[in-house]
Amino acid sequence: MWNEDVLSSGPRVATAGIDLIDDALARQDVDVAPTRWQPPSASGLAPVLSSIALCDGVRTANRTALERLTGARPHLVGVRPASEAVGLEPGTFLHAGPPIDWAGASGPLRGALTGAALLEGVASSPDDATARFARGEFRLEPCHHRAAVGPMAGVVSPSMPMLVIENEAGGGKAFCTINEGLGKVLRYGAFSAEVIDRLRWIERVLAPVLGDVLRAAGPLDLYAMAGEALQMGDECHNRNRAGTSLFLRAIGPHLIEAPRSSSDAAECFRFITGNDHFFLNLMMPAAKAAADTARDIEGSTMVVAMARNGTEFGIQLSGTGNEWFTGPSGVPQGLLFPGYGPEDANPDIGDSTITETVGVGGFAMASAPAIVKFVGGSSDLALDSSRRMYAITLGEHPLFRLPALDFRGTPVGIDVALVVRRNTLPVVNTGIAGREAGVGQVGAGLVDPPARCFENALARFAERHASLLRT
Amino acid sequence: MWNEDVLSSGPRVATAGIDLIDDALARQDVDVAPTRWQPPSASGLAPVLSSIALCDGVRTANRTALERLTGARPHLVGVRPASEAVGLEPGTFLHAGPPIDWAGASGPLRGALTGAALLEGVASSPDDATARFARGEFRLEPCHHRAAVGPMAGVVSPSMPMLVIENEAGGGKAFCTINEGLGKVLRYGAFSAEVIDRLRWIERVLAPVLGDVLRAAGPLDLYAMAGEALQMGDECHNRNRAGTSLFLRAIGPHLIEAPRSSSDAAECFRFITGNDHFFLNLMMPAAKAAADTARDIEGSTMVVAMARNGTEFGIQLSGTGNEWFTGPSGVPQGLLFPGYGPEDANPDIGDSTITETVGVGGFAMASAPAIVKFVGGSSDLALDSSRRMYAITLGEHPLFRLPALDFRGTPVGIDVALVVRRNTLPVVNTGIAGREAGVGQVGAGLVDPPARCFENALARFAERHASLLRT
Repeated sequence: MWNEDVLSSGPRVATAGIDLIDDALARQDVDVAPTRWQPPSASGLAPVLSSIALCDGVRTANRTALERLTGARPHLVGVRPASEAVGLEPGTFLHAGPPIDWAGASGPLRGALTGAALLEGVASSPDDATARFARGEFRLEPCHHRAAVGPMAGVVSPSMPMLVIENEAGGGKAFCTINEGLGKVLRYGAFSAEVIDRLRWIERVLAPVLGDVLRAAGPLDLYAMAGEALQMGDECHNRNRAGTSLFLRAIGPHLIEAPRSSSDAAECFRFITGNDHFFLNLMMPAAKAAADTARDIEGSTMVVAMARNGTEFGIQLSGTGNEWFTGPSGVPQGLLFPGYGPEDANPDIGDSTITETVGVGGFAMASAPAIVKFVGGSSDLALDSSRRMYAITLGEHPLFRLPALDFRGTPVGIDVALVVRRNTLPVVNTGIAGREAGVGQVGAGLVDPPARCFENALARFAERHASLLRT
Repeated sequence: MWNEDVLSSGPRVATAGIDLIDDALARQDVDVAPTRWQPPSASGLAPVLSSIALCDGVRTANRTALERLTGARPHLVGVRPASEAVGLEPGTFLHAGPPIDWAGASGPLRGALTGAALLEGVASSPDDATARFARGEFRLEPCHHRAAVGPMAGVVSPSMPMLVIENEAGGGKAFCTINEGLGKVLRYGAFSAEVIDRLRWIERVLAPVLGDVLRAAGPLDLYAMAGEALQMGDECHNRNRAGTSLFLRAIGPHLIEAPRSSSDAAECFRFITGNDHFFLNLMMPAAKAAADTARDIEGSTMVVAMARNGTEFGIQLSGTGNEWFTGPSGVPQGLLFPGYGPEDANPDIGDSTITETVGVGGFAMASAPAIVKFVGGSSDLALDSSRRMYAITLGEHPLFRLPALDFRGTPVGIDVALVVRRNTLPVVNTGIAGREAGVGQVGAGLVDPPARCFENALARFAERHASLLRT
């Protein structure tokens, strides 16, 4: 174009950063080539960013953090009730995201807590449950404080069976409940009789059968499965069809030979194969086990947890211990199921962002072009989501590879300093819960975390590492 | 580049068609942008192409052929021995590709025939088998002549169990043996005791168990599985990991409940899950059932079979009945297993090109970027292979969609007139057999069919349709 006469052929305009100009030009039928550019963050953190960039101690700490994060090899080893697995006491309930109380909880979290109280028999009715929670009779605690993670509301009560994951490369355990399936389920805030009945079946039939199967099969290498699932169109957060398939292939022979009745075993196979998200509840605790190996490294700016409770989005850094940095949860934008509008969508909820924390989920969308049918957008969006994340991560994952990017490792190890410097937020793809308790899932989409939690984390990091940053 | 001074910045040269010039320029460090361009075929068929392009009768016939081809819904319905399924008589052996005799057969085909004669007990030793074949004591016949297809050598003998496929949209059956797994296997020409023992186990254990399972499960929709497998990184010819997974998910509960011993059922599950190509022998007869619905449509230039016997590559057209048009099989180029060189590779062999005939395999490589680890090349090659095939096909498949191309249907319905006019051959990806009988697989790669068979088919079509083309 450029070698022709602009007056006869019309100009082609390259734009940077300001959509308003792109749109105005496009409306005038001008050929626009938008480039990707973000102005630096206006957070006043420039001096901190400079001293971090110059600090060898931070570089060394981040190298260690990344090595631990990507060196983990989480295996599924068994199934145990939450009372044993994470020592959960009667009257205590775990939930997704950073700490929150009943007053601050959104509809789906309240719904899930109500259901869990009914399941445990510590409330006689939904109204009784909400009254007791409101009076503070029960204790709420984040899953993350017990080495656990939970999708969506993430509610765990003492009787619930939990999948037990061990990091075979250096120890450490993590825990997660068993995925309940689709439709009306506790994690989306539903608490009707069918929801409670299904949870009881999971405890009575599925958990013991899975326990038998895992005793026979031995530890299952979940990262090997996830790595293969990325070659099969999953991104291991909202698309888990391949992961679920590979899990069924691994346990199939043991289900056939299971010591309990073959009708129970067949029912378990049917339950798992009926729910392509089954693998999510294996991937999440695998990711948690990996992320926890990288905690508490003095001087590291790497993110080791991202989680949402339906009201706030929170993160934790390796170098700042167990402190949470939070901001308001955004409402995911994407595809809503028929019959629901944007006003039905709850703000972002769930611990499933632990997948993005370890380099899959939104960061691996280049592996999963088919996911755009679920979260919206085109196949370019899937490629672009992964490509953009290399700008805010410390490395590339040695096990998780993206065939569509010629087997480049997924971007992994979110560096809060890069997030602020590049003014680029981690991409998160997620299910959307209905705003009202009891409704369930209403769609799926993408959501931006609040910039504030990354800025606050960075400021706090600088405060805690003032002497390191001066050296 | 173009708006700068060529003398200071150096030229960028766009080239068309002639690699010699690209290479010469690239060696001089000139920035080369090769464009895709093929000179028209020099076959002297230009007048035929013109009259076909103007002929409404051909257009109508091809529309019918494409509708039938893409409207088929092949289901797996059962397992029966070849003697019943295709009425195979003792002493008759089916093989892949167009007709061939023992004298013309390549090493892997001879090896597979030898193994089948030993399996049937009609020869006392490998030497005895080859002597009998050489003396013409046994009959050879293409699989395609009995509504069957076979991967690689494709040898079928009367006692072998065959998978029975029915097209539930309008009738028609097709047949294929059960995939034997990897390593030393009959289809690659191996005939040692382990090969024969495995075939006996398939007959004695796997076939009856699968028969029971299919009676319980009912017909299995293979095109639904293939469509989903394309969303999961398969292209349904050389990558079948997702298809095999989906098949196991479908039969798993029935294997658990199977009436025979659970140790047999578990052994069958382990055999299938140990072989990611299991689904190939389901996809191939499904494709055959679909392709056969489009046969014998007067005036259609659509290809309804492509098959290789290890010596020749042959095609059949809808409008020219059962006549084969052949040319010499090429040697696939790709990745060889360690220890093998190009001199070990047999020319292209097998009926598996029935997958490309129905719009998957090489035509769906855009779904399977991970396949380049198997056949060589980069992820761009995978995208490009699919994109190029739209130029020689009559339509896009309604069930087989490519997520990486924003869910565009795969290119389907190869038009021999377009192949010749555009001088673009169908892309085929394939396993590579060792040249010597008994060696087995030595690699995988891509191969060009011989242009001659398409040109000869077109010429014969014109001859047979002289009066139609005059109208």
